[in-house]
Amino acid sequence: MTKYILSVRPFREEFQQKMKGIDPDYQFVTADGLNEADVWNNVEITIGWRKDWNEKLLFEGTPLKWVHSISAGVDYLPLTKFKDYGIQLTNSSGLHAQSIADHLLAIIFMQSRGIFTAIQNQLTATWDKNADYSYLYDLRVLIVGTGKIGQKLASYLDVFGCKPVGINTNGRSIEHFTETYPLSELNQQASFSDIVINILPLTEDTYHLYNTEFFNSMKTTGTFINVGRGSSVDTEDLYAALKNKDINFAAIDVFEEEPLPSDNELWSLKNILITPHISGYTPHFQKKFMEIFLDDLSSFVNEGKLVENEVSLNSGY
Amino acid sequence: MTKYILSVRPFREEFQQKMKGIDPDYQFVTADGLNEADVWNNVEITIGWRKDWNEKLLFEGTPLKWVHSISAGVDYLPLTKFKDYGIQLTNSSGLHAQSIADHLLAIIFMQSRGIFTAIQNQLTATWDKNADYSYLYDLRVLIVGTGKIGQKLASYLDVFGCKPVGINTNGRSIEHFTETYPLSELNQQASFSDIVINILPLTEDTYHLYNTEFFNSMKTTGTFINVGRGSSVDTEDLYAALKNKDINFAAIDVFEEEPLPSDNELWSLKNILITPHISGYTPHFQKKFMEIFLDDLSSFVNEGKLVENEVSLNSGY
Repeated sequence: MTKYILSVRPFREEFQQKMKGIDPDYQFVTADGLNEADVWNNVEITIGWRKDWNEKLLFEGTPLKWVHSISAGVDYLPLTKFKDYGIQLTNSSGLHAQSIADHLLAIIFMQSRGIFTAIQNQLTATWDKNADYSYLYDLRVLIVGTGKIGQKLASYLDVFGCKPVGINTNGRSIEHFTETYPLSELNQQASFSDIVINILPLTEDTYHLYNTEFFNSMKTTGTFINVGRGSSVDTEDLYAALKNKDINFAAIDVFEEEPLPSDNELWSLKNILITPHISGYTPHFQKKFMEIFLDDLSSFVNEGKLVENEVSLNSGY
Repeated sequence: MTKYILSVRPFREEFQQKMKGIDPDYQFVTADGLNEADVWNNVEITIGWRKDWNEKLLFEGTPLKWVHSISAGVDYLPLTKFKDYGIQLTNSSGLHAQSIADHLLAIIFMQSRGIFTAIQNQLTATWDKNADYSYLYDLRVLIVGTGKIGQKLASYLDVFGCKPVGINTNGRSIEHFTETYPLSELNQQASFSDIVINILPLTEDTYHLYNTEFFNSMKTTGTFINVGRGSSVDTEDLYAALKNKDINFAAIDVFEEEPLPSDNELWSLKNILITPHISGYTPHFQKKFMEIFLDDLSSFVNEGKLVENEVSLNSGY
């Protein structure tokens, strides 16, 4: 009997064949190609999620057994309903780690070499040799979130003699971090860090974690970077902190509202780098994605369980 | 008898004491503190050079025996006269290697993550998710100049799986480079490189090396970076190449005329990063500089020769 793998986006034929190689009963379909009621009645797996699938697939007795998220963060998914209907969830944690680590290195090196200042001066054809510069090993970098992205970044910083400090829920030790502290000590750690980087997932505990109290605790020379989730930051508080120079600089890739509205005050500031949620853009995406998904499909079919990247529907990560 | 070490800039007392520790007859003086004829008659060593020292110190029978350049490049010095009067020359090659490698990594990572485009879009409050991005290991990086800076950069790129190609005078093999080619093959190698980085010293052979013929040989998607010397680039040809989109982007830190005049056409372009000759700015400068200079002073005093960083007065590097 044909069972469907419904995807929010297309994948090349070679990968569809690999799915069939694992179990010939599986048929890959994209949302756009989905016209028949027959398909909806036999969707067992989805790759990604669309809001209009809630009513089609979330009910008592749904054929859906497993959702694989294309992102690492799953805060946008109806987790409670997945739990109610016994739907398993996996994510693509690790898929974007290289890309996001590269993005973060771009910002850290720009900052350590005075390049943001040079860019501002270039706008007014100003040659000004005053620049702040430092070796990475003289910077205290606080990485908030010690998962795959945080670990990869930490391992790279180590190459340059920089020993980053990690923050996670309970302060447990993590490879590549010489020091780690629990989330409850975030503001204290931020008070003597030069660069603070948010890579946490969005949960109830991290909503508006970065607010005025946090920014006031940072060094006035400090840089704040967010590549996690927009809603971990109170946008108005961030604006005020930058406007008042309570912190020196921010590089923000994710926002509470995306696209960031063109009349949002953040655009008017000079001490911010705004990037349009691109840090996770990943070359060779299909190949990288399928390395995770096909492993899980294979164990799902052959062992009845998911071996990689299963997400707890309770904690949300 | 007191002999003088005349310097273009001050150094902390601790380093002056170390000079005396090597030979108590040496007295460190800065140009500003130099009032007496007695000093001019006994300057044996200079740190750096000023044009007005030409007439004071360059003559038959001069007491000057050794000039130590603060930069790596020595193109601004009267090399022929040094040769005529038997004055030895050393430079500070290696001193700026970490800083310049960091500066180059900033630019390479920015380029690989689409951040230059994001900066342009930010100027008009434009949220545009179209971005070019790539892993470093998918980029062909051509490093023109395989000295200490080039080697350091190459070793870092290797961490990210990128195997840079090197260019030097004769194509000799160099650590950290899997391929090296002679300077005569520059344009050919540039034709299939994604990023070309100039770190060569300025000599007769490298004056205006980067001209229209070179830029035409580059990929139209290519990036050109100059952290070597400004006069290695024909500025008008660079402007034309960028204006006509013969190349995609340039990041230029050194210019034929510095400061770059405010009416220079380069300022009007969007596809260039202009930095004001800051790539070599080095944290802990005095300490790093003295590591090289004091080693040489010790061997100069004790063995009558210079062991580190001696520059050929014939080749100019």
